[in-house]
Amino acid sequence: MNLALLFTEDFVAADHALLAGRRLAHLHSVLKATEGDLVPVGLVDGEMGTGRVLRLTETEALLQVKLTDPPPAPLPLTLVLAMPRPKMFRRVLQTCATLGVKDIWLVNSYKVEKSFWQTPWLSEENLRENLVLGLEQARDTLMPRVHIRKLFKPFVEDELPALLKNTRALVAHPGTSSPCPTHIEGPATLCVGPEGGFIPYEVDKLIEAGCEAVHLGSRILRVETAVPVLVSRLFDAGA
Amino acid sequence: MNLALLFTEDFVAADHALLAGRRLAHLHSVLKATEGDLVPVGLVDGEMGTGRVLRLTETEALLQVKLTDPPPAPLPLTLVLAMPRPKMFRRVLQTCATLGVKDIWLVNSYKVEKSFWQTPWLSEENLRENLVLGLEQARDTLMPRVHIRKLFKPFVEDELPALLKNTRALVAHPGTSSPCPTHIEGPATLCVGPEGGFIPYEVDKLIEAGCEAVHLGSRILRVETAVPVLVSRLFDAGA
Repeated sequence: MNLALLFTEDFVAADHALLAGRRLAHLHSVLKATEGDLVPVGLVDGEMGTGRVLRLTETEALLQVKLTDPPPAPLPLTLVLAMPRPKMFRRVLQTCATLGVKDIWLVNSYKVEKSFWQTPWLSEENLRENLVLGLEQARDTLMPRVHIRKLFKPFVEDELPALLKNTRALVAHPGTSSPCPTHIEGPATLCVGPEGGFIPYEVDKLIEAGCEAVHLGSRILRVETAVPVLVSRLFDAGA
Repeated sequence: MNLALLFTEDFVAADHALLAGRRLAHLHSVLKATEGDLVPVGLVDGEMGTGRVLRLTETEALLQVKLTDPPPAPLPLTLVLAMPRPKMFRRVLQTCATLGVKDIWLVNSYKVEKSFWQTPWLSEENLRENLVLGLEQARDTLMPRVHIRKLFKPFVEDELPALLKNTRALVAHPGTSSPCPTHIEGPATLCVGPEGGFIPYEVDKLIEAGCEAVHLGSRILRVETAVPVLVSRLFDAGA
């Protein structure tokens, strides 16, 4: 946590916020904050700045909040992701949030096991918690949106073409002949398959919808590695 | 596991290997192999090819091995990594192996907690197991070398200058003014700090040894995300 993300419900006055739970524990155990210290904060979907610790006890911290700076620019990327295995999903979600992905579509695919959709990590509350952890890591405040689509075909036929419009549309597909482009200009839509990849029918449907199949070299990457590799390759990571 | 990595001790004849344990379980449960099937294999530090399943029981699989193709090219990268937190270390190690990093130096740093060095994941056997998992994911056979240096100063003063020689030497340091270069030509040495980063004294020592401090934009990435992002940015990932 490189920034404590604040929500409107944390505010007890216009510029005073009260923290408890995880964010309080972090102040104590990692930042070892004391009264008077300045700690980095951000308002969800708003600006970033500092919080002066006015009162710090075992059960709460009162911060005087001063918001001064805009959050980092979002990535101009729509990520369409075959629902990952639950133990990997949480990390992938945090990584997406950290990297600045703001639009995430979780879709079904032949090799997505039915049980993956049962994971408690898909609940509204758990999605938000993991996105917050990713934002706090990156020092960002803009909450990503997660869309869940449990049927592949209607999504690809009815919704994807509109998402792709005016973007560079790619599907990561090991073994295809075109390498993934580098440092593109403008927005992109990127489809990433499950472990074992999209099946040929799915790749064909994605191409029909307007995607270009691209590869990342001969190495097969896990989804949690492929996402940062692809994002870093497509965009200039703020540098 | 996109390839079963074979070791000389697996061979019962010049072209016959006997598998048990994890690799056997994978044949049964994931590949659902039956006798006669061809499965992808590779010889550690050697070529890749196929294994024909000659016999498959609950306790062993006998493969007729045919090695035909070279493994993917290694990354021309020396990675100097502040020892990560144990729960992250295993994944970072697998990711490095998957990405094709072949030379990994685990070093101490002020913000590396002493307890990190006590992890059982640093044993010879566990290091090898996780590197194997990473290679099998990528379909690679070339085993990375891991070097452990528990003292920062002697490493940076006495060993690092020789490692850096004739390479582009970088230390990832959030907040510095130069962006990380992209698509460099030739070999690189990359130093990545712990959670919270190298302290200024350490960055100065690394610069003194010949490194250039570079940043990846305003987002702070976890080590497990920074490594694939940096590798993808520096090299053209086989594409």
